[in-house]
Amino acid sequence: MAALPPARQYQLQRCVQKLGLSASTSLHWPRLDLALTHVSADPIHNYEQLELLGDAVLRLVATECLQDQFPDATVGELSALRSILTSDRTLAQLAETLGLGNYLQLSEAACKDTLGQPARLADAFEAVLAALYLETHNFSLIRPWLDPHLQRKAREIQQDPARQNPKVRLQELTQAHTKTRPTYRTVEQRPIDGDPQRFLAEVWFQDIPWAKGYGSTKKQAEQDAAAAAYDTLYQHLMPDTAPSTRTS
Amino acid sequence: MAALPPARQYQLQRCVQKLGLSASTSLHWPRLDLALTHVSADPIHNYEQLELLGDAVLRLVATECLQDQFPDATVGELSALRSILTSDRTLAQLAETLGLGNYLQLSEAACKDTLGQPARLADAFEAVLAALYLETHNFSLIRPWLDPHLQRKAREIQQDPARQNPKVRLQELTQAHTKTRPTYRTVEQRPIDGDPQRFLAEVWFQDIPWAKGYGSTKKQAEQDAAAAAYDTLYQHLMPDTAPSTRTS
Repeated sequence: MAALPPARQYQLQRCVQKLGLSASTSLHWPRLDLALTHVSADPIHNYEQLELLGDAVLRLVATECLQDQFPDATVGELSALRSILTSDRTLAQLAETLGLGNYLQLSEAACKDTLGQPARLADAFEAVLAALYLETHNFSLIRPWLDPHLQRKAREIQQDPARQNPKVRLQELTQAHTKTRPTYRTVEQRPIDGDPQRFLAEVWFQDIPWAKGYGSTKKQAEQDAAAAAYDTLYQHLMPDTAPSTRTS
Repeated sequence: MAALPPARQYQLQRCVQKLGLSASTSLHWPRLDLALTHVSADPIHNYEQLELLGDAVLRLVATECLQDQFPDATVGELSALRSILTSDRTLAQLAETLGLGNYLQLSEAACKDTLGQPARLADAFEAVLAALYLETHNFSLIRPWLDPHLQRKAREIQQDPARQNPKVRLQELTQAHTKTRPTYRTVEQRPIDGDPQRFLAEVWFQDIPWAKGYGSTKKQAEQDAAAAAYDTLYQHLMPDTAPSTRTS
């Protein structure tokens, strides 16, 4: 990768300062430039490979951040939160807050495609995370500024009243798009009172099992399964949007 | 977490040596013990939280390892490979190779449930990766021994003749389980010869779009979409197994 024009490098320095990194942070600027180059600006050298890595970087950072923030949450709750935190919709919102769009290189035609902007921002955001990860092969350039954003978002999601009843929420989703509703197959797999895996529930929709859940009661297992299925079903029923957290 | 009985600690030391770590590696042994404790052995202190983190650790390690191994592969190819590398089936095979089952604590009843063993091994394997990650917050205790396994597996998958034609393979999968076959909606989105995103294909099945693909030809875009959809569709049509790599 060739050295960058000074104007672009100055732009990228402003960009990382907006994320919350120190102005003196020394980075591999051409890689950060790549992370902020859409395929319409360069069909070969663009953010796509970094985005693939960044998706995994984000998933790990979000998991660790959530486990630190909610040490008593169940795996099902954490997994549902993680799925929303790493959705395109949440990422696009974060990227917007951080002003990432100002630094993204696009073709003129892509610029006019405003509907595609949230997905591009989400993708570029993941690519930027990958570029920062590759500097150190750990998360020292990411977690200090990203954790507070993820924590705030996670609190908002948790406080959302619609999340208190995942079965109702899932049924509303499926009935808004189809004439059928999800069904549950629930079995008592261990006869021990209080065992958090006493019941196992599977949520089925359109002849497909979408997720499993566990609980010490039948109801808990089904709620857990519904929560785990929501985002995947949302993506399949509304492929061009990310799950609504109903918080914004 | 209390100190471990010396016999268990000795067991765990043997376990990490089998992974390929040095005998003198100093670890947080109670955490590794947790990673190798199934819920049937302890309903509260078991590998479930570590498994959630380990799933993300593995995804990141697999992505980086694949990008290093195949620097010229497309994002679609890498994504399809990653999905197989991180499937329960691949993980259970790796865990088997590494003898992880010998160190997994289970109830007697769970021991007799041999059908459940591959999933337990896959889960415990992810939990062990999380325990090793938490030692250093980087992958220095993981990649040196895991990369060669992932690379070997990735080569096997790549050489599998069935993967050469993802559309045929996807059609075989859907027709083995249903009476319908996937369809493709393909549009020319840019009129430039050779542009790797000239065509965009979506693969639809049972009224749901399962994946997108891109290519400089219509056929390439559809093959890319079929490859990207395979593992997700496999999981939905055969929820209790992981995608077959047809290599073992």
